[in-house]
Amino acid sequence: MTRLPAGATIGILGGGQLGRMLASSAAQLGFDVSIYCPEADCPAARVAARHTKADYDDHAALLHWASDCDVITYEFENVPVTAAAALMDAGIDVRPGAKALQVSQDRLVEKSFLSDCGIATADFGPVDAAEDIAALIARFSGQGILKTRRDGYDGKGQVRLAAGDDFQAAHKALGRGPCILEALIPFACEISVIVARDVAGHSICYDAPRNEHVNGILRRSIVPSGLPEELINRAFAAAKSLADALNYVGVLALEFFVLDDGRLLANEFAPRVHNSGHWTPEACATGQFEQHIRAVAGWPLGPVDRYHDVEMANLLGDEALEPPADLARKGVVTLYGKRDAKPGRKMGHLVIRRS
Amino acid sequence: MTRLPAGATIGILGGGQLGRMLASSAAQLGFDVSIYCPEADCPAARVAARHTKADYDDHAALLHWASDCDVITYEFENVPVTAAAALMDAGIDVRPGAKALQVSQDRLVEKSFLSDCGIATADFGPVDAAEDIAALIARFSGQGILKTRRDGYDGKGQVRLAAGDDFQAAHKALGRGPCILEALIPFACEISVIVARDVAGHSICYDAPRNEHVNGILRRSIVPSGLPEELINRAFAAAKSLADALNYVGVLALEFFVLDDGRLLANEFAPRVHNSGHWTPEACATGQFEQHIRAVAGWPLGPVDRYHDVEMANLLGDEALEPPADLARKGVVTLYGKRDAKPGRKMGHLVIRRS
Repeated sequence: MTRLPAGATIGILGGGQLGRMLASSAAQLGFDVSIYCPEADCPAARVAARHTKADYDDHAALLHWASDCDVITYEFENVPVTAAAALMDAGIDVRPGAKALQVSQDRLVEKSFLSDCGIATADFGPVDAAEDIAALIARFSGQGILKTRRDGYDGKGQVRLAAGDDFQAAHKALGRGPCILEALIPFACEISVIVARDVAGHSICYDAPRNEHVNGILRRSIVPSGLPEELINRAFAAAKSLADALNYVGVLALEFFVLDDGRLLANEFAPRVHNSGHWTPEACATGQFEQHIRAVAGWPLGPVDRYHDVEMANLLGDEALEPPADLARKGVVTLYGKRDAKPGRKMGHLVIRRS
Repeated sequence: MTRLPAGATIGILGGGQLGRMLASSAAQLGFDVSIYCPEADCPAARVAARHTKADYDDHAALLHWASDCDVITYEFENVPVTAAAALMDAGIDVRPGAKALQVSQDRLVEKSFLSDCGIATADFGPVDAAEDIAALIARFSGQGILKTRRDGYDGKGQVRLAAGDDFQAAHKALGRGPCILEALIPFACEISVIVARDVAGHSICYDAPRNEHVNGILRRSIVPSGLPEELINRAFAAAKSLADALNYVGVLALEFFVLDDGRLLANEFAPRVHNSGHWTPEACATGQFEQHIRAVAGWPLGPVDRYHDVEMANLLGDEALEPPADLARKGVVTLYGKRDAKPGRKMGHLVIRRS
């Protein structure tokens, strides 16, 4: 496949808000979008030309759906690797491909991969049984964070530990499955890099936002971060080397802790468009959703010049029940069309232009 | 109806590119969109939650469709007045309503309405038979333009006349139906005003673009126009008084000829978002599509601050067959998803930011 022409169909695995925003950007570029998602009436399906409702493990349904798509991408990192692999084995272009899923779905594999790329992380070690914890906690100067290797997101599936805590209980609370223990490092702030890489291997980074999390959930991204250019450039270099190592096509986000001494420790990456890049459509020459679609379609990347200083704030749970007309007074409002405003659920976001 | 909440459904009569861009903006604001259009696979249906395929004259289908909508708008001015009226008679909110359709569908009624609003136009007179033409041509100093009263667009349904021409043949060429003859006035340039008016009667105008037409079709809109602020303000005042006179809700475009002496003569208006406002999403705090949806949803209008100098260029016919990846190098590309690139057909547009 070279460059997809107008009228081609882009298939998206997943039907959430990221798929919804990707679908809208694909439509602006003249593409049809076909959503594959197990849920009826999902946010992305309501802005797409077609929707197949089936499970990710139903490879017959997957292949049937894919026969109508010119290229396939995904909007969340927990698409089963086997689903992406089955499509690729059938000769279908899946971008960014199965490798990025396989690496990012397991925190231990992910951290090891980052290290192999020469990207510094907090110290970490595997926890297969509660008995593994004590030695690691000692190595980490008495403090760590225990995380399930799989399926955690937005702060779920993790617990902080200190020397003397009940490690058995902690491991039990996380289901006694395979875990990773990471050293708990005091940091000054958090940033992320949104990097895009095209089929020719060219990559480009958006200005790095400073991110504020509460209870493990992103609340706010602020651009510019106020951090020195030299530091941001180191973060860019790391994100680009990660994208290269994955032979990545599309948009990827790499999150970092910034230490007081200016060191950067990578935390995790997401093989997809990212919440901390939701300000890009309102502030940049090319938004992250269009950028991902361009890359996936085999197009060259668009410019990422930033026109505005911005703050992006998530609308969680019933924050999104405030009348949208009132929300819209505060900034550019995007609502995801989710039917149920559960506490903490990401329902929308606001982008406030500061300049 | 007060202000529509997130999750409400906005019905759009018409399934073309304007409906497509309206639907995408509505989705961003958290609305579901339901398209009513006689054509299968129309551009707007492919980005909307629902699509009813039926004729505008099928009032039973219309009312059934409308029962699932919280408010209804339209994306083109040739929706039958009877269709809008049938919906309104059933107690359904149709915004901007039937009046704006009724006035804009007949060039003679439209010009008379503009005059009644105190908005200057070129001299005009009704032509019910070819015999009416000679006296009008004489009154117009020997030059005029004969137009069908209904159904003309993009330069179709009109012919230039001068004293001595074969008026019978000209009238026959236009089908011998009711026409209007307008004086042909030499003008320096053309501009348009995109005005939005909310349910409370507040109105706001976007900076007025200078428009270049070729063969009656818009090729290019340029902002800023380079014209004096005093002139632009007169155009704003005219557009606002028109919107007030129609008790309009939504976005409306009023086109003007600018004469060498600075006079403004209104040409026509469109009761909808307008091609000459397609640069607003890329250049302004609130684009015209979002603005129209806000108004129709009963929300207050958004700010129209302009962040960029821009040029908007239409992609006509096979201009849109240039690989979209190449088009995208030139500016922000929007393609409408039309299957057939007929000569002169509006297939997409480019917005080029100049600052």
